[in-house]
Amino acid sequence: MFKKGVLILFFCVFLVQAQQNDSVAQGIKDIYDQALTNGKSYDWLDHLSNQIGGRLSGSLNEERAIQWAKEELKALPIDSVWLQPVMVPKWVRGTFEYANIESSPGNTINVNICALGGSIATPSSGIRANVIEVKSFDDLDKIGKEKIKGKIVFFNRPMEAGLVNTYDAYARAVDQRYSGAAEASKFGAVAVIVRSLNHRLDDYPHTGVMSYGALPLSNRIPAAAISTNDAELLSSMIALNPNLRFFMKQNCKNYPDVQSYNVIAQIDGSESPEKIILVGAHLDSWDLGDGAHDDGAGVVQSMEVLNILSSKKFRPKNSIRVVLFANEENGLKGAKDYAESVKKSRETHLMALESDTGGFTPRAFSFDTSKKYFEKIMRWKPYLEPYYIHSFSQRGSGADVSLLKDNALVLAALRTDSQRYFIHHHSEMDTFSEINERELALGAAGMTALVYLLDQLGLE
Amino acid sequence: MFKKGVLILFFCVFLVQAQQNDSVAQGIKDIYDQALTNGKSYDWLDHLSNQIGGRLSGSLNEERAIQWAKEELKALPIDSVWLQPVMVPKWVRGTFEYANIESSPGNTINVNICALGGSIATPSSGIRANVIEVKSFDDLDKIGKEKIKGKIVFFNRPMEAGLVNTYDAYARAVDQRYSGAAEASKFGAVAVIVRSLNHRLDDYPHTGVMSYGALPLSNRIPAAAISTNDAELLSSMIALNPNLRFFMKQNCKNYPDVQSYNVIAQIDGSESPEKIILVGAHLDSWDLGDGAHDDGAGVVQSMEVLNILSSKKFRPKNSIRVVLFANEENGLKGAKDYAESVKKSRETHLMALESDTGGFTPRAFSFDTSKKYFEKIMRWKPYLEPYYIHSFSQRGSGADVSLLKDNALVLAALRTDSQRYFIHHHSEMDTFSEINERELALGAAGMTALVYLLDQLGLE
Repeated sequence: MFKKGVLILFFCVFLVQAQQNDSVAQGIKDIYDQALTNGKSYDWLDHLSNQIGGRLSGSLNEERAIQWAKEELKALPIDSVWLQPVMVPKWVRGTFEYANIESSPGNTINVNICALGGSIATPSSGIRANVIEVKSFDDLDKIGKEKIKGKIVFFNRPMEAGLVNTYDAYARAVDQRYSGAAEASKFGAVAVIVRSLNHRLDDYPHTGVMSYGALPLSNRIPAAAISTNDAELLSSMIALNPNLRFFMKQNCKNYPDVQSYNVIAQIDGSESPEKIILVGAHLDSWDLGDGAHDDGAGVVQSMEVLNILSSKKFRPKNSIRVVLFANEENGLKGAKDYAESVKKSRETHLMALESDTGGFTPRAFSFDTSKKYFEKIMRWKPYLEPYYIHSFSQRGSGADVSLLKDNALVLAALRTDSQRYFIHHHSEMDTFSEINERELALGAAGMTALVYLLDQLGLE
Repeated sequence: MFKKGVLILFFCVFLVQAQQNDSVAQGIKDIYDQALTNGKSYDWLDHLSNQIGGRLSGSLNEERAIQWAKEELKALPIDSVWLQPVMVPKWVRGTFEYANIESSPGNTINVNICALGGSIATPSSGIRANVIEVKSFDDLDKIGKEKIKGKIVFFNRPMEAGLVNTYDAYARAVDQRYSGAAEASKFGAVAVIVRSLNHRLDDYPHTGVMSYGALPLSNRIPAAAISTNDAELLSSMIALNPNLRFFMKQNCKNYPDVQSYNVIAQIDGSESPEKIILVGAHLDSWDLGDGAHDDGAGVVQSMEVLNILSSKKFRPKNSIRVVLFANEENGLKGAKDYAESVKKSRETHLMALESDTGGFTPRAFSFDTSKKYFEKIMRWKPYLEPYYIHSFSQRGSGADVSLLKDNALVLAALRTDSQRYFIHHHSEMDTFSEINERELALGAAGMTALVYLLDQLGLE
């Protein structure tokens, strides 16, 4: 009898578990169906990209985007939508940049440059100087101050094509853009030109944030990106004529910080409303394209998580919160202020999941968490493999959610296929026409599924 | 002593195996480096797409493509290149098709159609008739001969957006294109219009092969595809006015079979030259685009396998053979003749690997083989996971290599990300401008790596 009882008990546990697994699998199927057949992410992104467009921190477009996101979220059957005030930097590009290569007096070729975010302007008459081409900061040391002084330093180390994950190549090249001006200034350079962080040879310069570090105001020099085609051209012309001169003109400007907002929306948890599952992305973008991939995609995918769950009349155990962060691109002020507010609250963030790798096919989730939680999370992977999310790894999270490190049990990021991203990133090529509706929707579905798995199965 | 000896022996075996594994992993790294930094596939595809273009079986462009592929392969440091004669069908589109919807006499709207491959022409004055819209062959039964007779049948069942793998959606919709005319003819229809097999709503009709089956010549009716936008338009107009008339005109024609060739090239095996590892793709394409994705990508990836291996001065144990098949799209004649020739030879095909899913990011390999061999192959997967090929499955192989079923130990197919494929497939949208250089190169690298793993590690 006892044995039989144990057997029956085992069978019942097995049955309950199997039923639970079945219902979870069905829930995920419903989420994907909804995203692929009746989702809002593509139409939302069409509006954000084509009716609003690029939305740099502190710009009128950023204000418009905040109002639009707030109104769209308010139209969903969810519990609350609010704005969190954030002061953000305001940098303005001004009129378009101009540059040419002067191989001999009067003999010039125009090239495509754009000011890097945060850079100062050139004098209004521009800068004309000889060029020193380098691949690294070490090269500056080797060449020395005497030869660099009064010249324009041209950083021309390409992204490494051999690295399969293009983010690895980006990480190994971005120092030129971020710190090139600060480093070259120490050697007396008058400006820097940085090869665009783009695998492809084309004519589009790619902007992005740069920093002068601790450099005093008087030592700051203008910094611009040059298109990859023009970087190749400049390099080959320098090889023929080391005395050629480069002319550049830009009138960008830094203004005092201005008022902005994080846009936040929530479905309250039915069992543990103080436990938060956060999904987020950044609402600001660079100004050259319309910011469809970076990070309009993440914005509408995060909004879609709430849309899918609320349209399914799903009542989560924990609160599901969307945060559309202000100012990721040039300051992270939205993320900093949000993290500060969390420290002061009584809420527990179970997970903070970010989407900021473009609206491409989702391939993986990466996590920053304890071994114990990661082991638990790994058990959910079989639920997502039928939807071609094949990898769960411990490769960190995203820029915005990483600031919640001390206040969230799990940080996570959606990882999309990375091959096309840097063609678009921070350039005129980041437009809605480069978005595939299904790829975008699959990212939203994957994020919703991960939120649902955590809410239903828990971390303990 | 004995124990110590066993331990040393174990240690040696372990060491040899570890070294072998290290050298295999290094070999795969070299393959990826070569493909991503110094490959030929993108430039080859540029030529095939932009200098030759669409290459339907029996066309002058197909001849040009065969000559071009032969010459390019001959320029590689490999052992042999030859042509295998194949007789192929010759179907010609003729002048572009024309169609309109006539909502009332004299009140017409032009719509985009294209003849399906193998279809007969309309009379030179075209066909003008009422339209019956259906979703399936069952609908024909339900509606019945009386109502269908003398009308144009409009098959309008969309590809299912909810299926994550778009090939599944294709498989569930393609009967309309392939057999729609044969089925509708039985009910007295005068022509068929088939909704293009495209997830997206756009203006491009998608062609593809159709068959009249056993239908006698006198009962054959013209068949055309209509763009998805125009399918939506036609459907909504029928709902308003079931008596509207549709006009269509096409003057495509079937000719007698003509001479073509499979293009074959080989690096001879150093140990077992009679054992063949085949990689292949089809050189023919439809005529509307330039066939860059279908299957120019597979062609240049297959060629690239030989290029990478020969440029690395790699001496394989087994023979590595490329077959560029003739006539996959409308007859499979190249594959049939190749399979026949294999039956008569003394060669053993260890594997036949096909690339025919477009030049998108490779996600998986699928295999058609015995349990024993699949288990062995599964042990290679960890070598490819660092390169984001995450899945090995038993989901069949490709159309061309499937005919080697009885004469190859393993049939295999490269599976790329499927989300964008059916936007391009068989339409004017299948062009080189829609190819990403890195995605294409990663496919070539993955194929080369699989060939290399089999050659080095064997199946036994």
